[in-house]
Amino acid sequence: MASSHPKNVGILAMDIYFPPTCVKQEALEAHDGASKGKYTIGLGQDCLAFCTEVEDVISMSLTAVSSLLKKYKIDPKQIGRMEVGSETVIDKSKSIKTFLMQLFEESGNTDIEGVDSTNACYGGTAALFNCVNWVESSSWDGRYGLVICADSAVYAEGPARPTGGAAAIAILVGPDAPIAFESKFRGSHMAHAYDFYKPNLASEYPVVDGKLSQNCYLMALDSCYKVFCEKFEKLEGKPFSMAEADYFVFHSPYNKLVQKSFGRLYYDDFLRNPSFVDEAARTSLEPYKSLSGDESYNSRDLEKANQQASKKIYDTKVQPSTLIPKEVGNMYTASLYAAFASLLHNENSSLIGKRVVMFSYGSGLTATMFSFKIQEGQGPFTLSNIVTLMDVAGKLKQRVEFPPEKFVETMKLMEHRYGAKDYVTSGDCSNLPAGTFYLTKVDSMYRRFYARKDTTST
Amino acid sequence: MASSHPKNVGILAMDIYFPPTCVKQEALEAHDGASKGKYTIGLGQDCLAFCTEVEDVISMSLTAVSSLLKKYKIDPKQIGRMEVGSETVIDKSKSIKTFLMQLFEESGNTDIEGVDSTNACYGGTAALFNCVNWVESSSWDGRYGLVICADSAVYAEGPARPTGGAAAIAILVGPDAPIAFESKFRGSHMAHAYDFYKPNLASEYPVVDGKLSQNCYLMALDSCYKVFCEKFEKLEGKPFSMAEADYFVFHSPYNKLVQKSFGRLYYDDFLRNPSFVDEAARTSLEPYKSLSGDESYNSRDLEKANQQASKKIYDTKVQPSTLIPKEVGNMYTASLYAAFASLLHNENSSLIGKRVVMFSYGSGLTATMFSFKIQEGQGPFTLSNIVTLMDVAGKLKQRVEFPPEKFVETMKLMEHRYGAKDYVTSGDCSNLPAGTFYLTKVDSMYRRFYARKDTTST
Repeated sequence: MASSHPKNVGILAMDIYFPPTCVKQEALEAHDGASKGKYTIGLGQDCLAFCTEVEDVISMSLTAVSSLLKKYKIDPKQIGRMEVGSETVIDKSKSIKTFLMQLFEESGNTDIEGVDSTNACYGGTAALFNCVNWVESSSWDGRYGLVICADSAVYAEGPARPTGGAAAIAILVGPDAPIAFESKFRGSHMAHAYDFYKPNLASEYPVVDGKLSQNCYLMALDSCYKVFCEKFEKLEGKPFSMAEADYFVFHSPYNKLVQKSFGRLYYDDFLRNPSFVDEAARTSLEPYKSLSGDESYNSRDLEKANQQASKKIYDTKVQPSTLIPKEVGNMYTASLYAAFASLLHNENSSLIGKRVVMFSYGSGLTATMFSFKIQEGQGPFTLSNIVTLMDVAGKLKQRVEFPPEKFVETMKLMEHRYGAKDYVTSGDCSNLPAGTFYLTKVDSMYRRFYARKDTTST
Repeated sequence: MASSHPKNVGILAMDIYFPPTCVKQEALEAHDGASKGKYTIGLGQDCLAFCTEVEDVISMSLTAVSSLLKKYKIDPKQIGRMEVGSETVIDKSKSIKTFLMQLFEESGNTDIEGVDSTNACYGGTAALFNCVNWVESSSWDGRYGLVICADSAVYAEGPARPTGGAAAIAILVGPDAPIAFESKFRGSHMAHAYDFYKPNLASEYPVVDGKLSQNCYLMALDSCYKVFCEKFEKLEGKPFSMAEADYFVFHSPYNKLVQKSFGRLYYDDFLRNPSFVDEAARTSLEPYKSLSGDESYNSRDLEKANQQASKKIYDTKVQPSTLIPKEVGNMYTASLYAAFASLLHNENSSLIGKRVVMFSYGSGLTATMFSFKIQEGQGPFTLSNIVTLMDVAGKLKQRVEFPPEKFVETMKLMEHRYGAKDYVTSGDCSNLPAGTFYLTKVDSMYRRFYARKDTTST
């Protein structure tokens, strides 16, 4: 028997957790002896969240999942698949997903498919696609899918350190979703590259080639956009240009790259058909029309011209999605979805009927451009309910600013703790909101133990 | 518009690669000073394949994929998704999948979704489910999916070392497959456990609790079988018992566990309904009817009674799938599919019309029982063509036996090489078959370089 696909599969609900402990980029700039504006304007970042010794990628994931299940009153038995996207490796074999199964023990539900998906910052998108495909597959049993994107992004002392961050996002997946996939419009670009990777297994820090990584990102963006536009035109019978989408949300290692990326898409539109851009832009981009690909990735003048030409549309179509990435930093797999959460927070119900284009990038490299169609939703799964329950403003307000010295000290401690065994943490959860999970100890067999800060509401 | 699922999605083709370098378990037994039969009868293993310094999980994957594409004359542009299941971590961020994209460079095909799936030996099954779901999803674009299960299983000196092994399997996925998923019959069991894990990031070796791991495996088997039977009965309107399936294929860390597992299923059938087993078995299992779960996992007498009672059916329904796992060892993610490849090799076209039940297990823990319905297939994707092109007998015949001393020496060298940079391998590929990829060097930035041994046939 041929069964058919359920309709409007996508995001029913989401919640975000980021550590309340953070450091201001302005203060970090001064502490590092960097020129004024290097981090705040050069990178475009405001603040950076980080895990102290009582938090890690597992505790953040436990917090995000338990919070989502509680807020939406989801019976744990109603979850049929759970997948994690992460590049923060605490164990090379045992998945983060299996740690999260602790939250389902009491319910007796052990029939939950899914493991961890891995490729740099792209793993969350892979997990989300997998969950959506499961709902659309013949093996779907009618229950919800759950996706967790979680990472702690930390860098060795040096120019990359201010691009750190940390967060976990939990996403509930099912049919009739307010945030529905337009599954036929999808362009991927996958290739072998060494732009950012983690070959030093004993260290939490990556090997990064910043310049190469930016070029890889922009090249992948071009390639994905090309495929996306081709598929759109084939199916819709009209060309795609930026005018066809209301918002563009980007994986956000740092805000400056998001600005450059949107400028680049604008330039792509101009190359595809000059009439896609306004007259002033046509004039200002004309000199760069015949650059080769390589020349165009490396031309500072073109970069500036692109950003200038696209500035006004950027403010409308991109700016609303930049809040959390600027305030929290790079969250790796969670970055794109934190940007999307910012858009929901800022635009709320005015998004209904709108199309949002998403660009996911993971070094190494894997990238996909895809799109959502936004609807009102139903039951507890409405756009406005998601925004209310996510409470982005409240979470940003409750943060604890650390001076740069204390941030650096924490990073040093974490270097020793990474991959270590046989230690007890301070157990100090005074900075954490009620209901947050935290690490209490790692025993002599490397087994990790977590506790939960009392919830005031229960 | 509601589109419908394509029919009979499953395995169209597969190929297997294992290193030709191997050591006989009988010789290893003597070398280790173990009692005679400890490895050959106690573990039930005949031989163990391992990577020398010119091979690793990436080279094996490159070999398996290029071989499959060539043998079946698949245009690389016809691949729309590629996923890897592995627990052999060479880089904590960059996926093995991105290394494999090198094989697609010449074709210009970069629009290939998918990354790596991780949870111990289960990652391959997760990748396969993901690929099948993609074909059944609304985002499917009509192209093939490709799944790679690849691992190098190595252990520190001690009792677990003889359970090592290494292999890569490439699986082509699409509709109208000779090996089709019965997607509604599927039981999973997922939980938080520390039976086998890899928390020591700088070492390739796992932390293993052999006894706990075996109990976790058998407990997960019981739980999956229970859910599988419930779903079968609900959909088919009759109870499932072993008689409903022609073959049972198990994840195979070592053959003895496979024997125990089948015995366990037999015991489960007896407990569910004594009439499912024959009269002699009813009598011999009667004394164990009232054991608690824990008691039953730890009773040696029950274990023996189960194996004895199920021996005859084991020889028919399980034995044909044990060849490669006994000859190559534990291949982690590839183990279950190597067992399935053995079944294809041994039974060939007589499998047509048969049902095969598969049990996938990954420590930590994640497990699923699912089933295939076997058909003749069409075009190049027929059962008999798969068997011919896979050439299991030929591959087993062409192996190079190492004396135990040389195996131990290789393990020592590999300990130093794991996670290292800035070295050149011997480049000696004299032991490798034509067309095999091998590692030539790792540069000062940890970048890995591979070459391919000339194919005689081109």
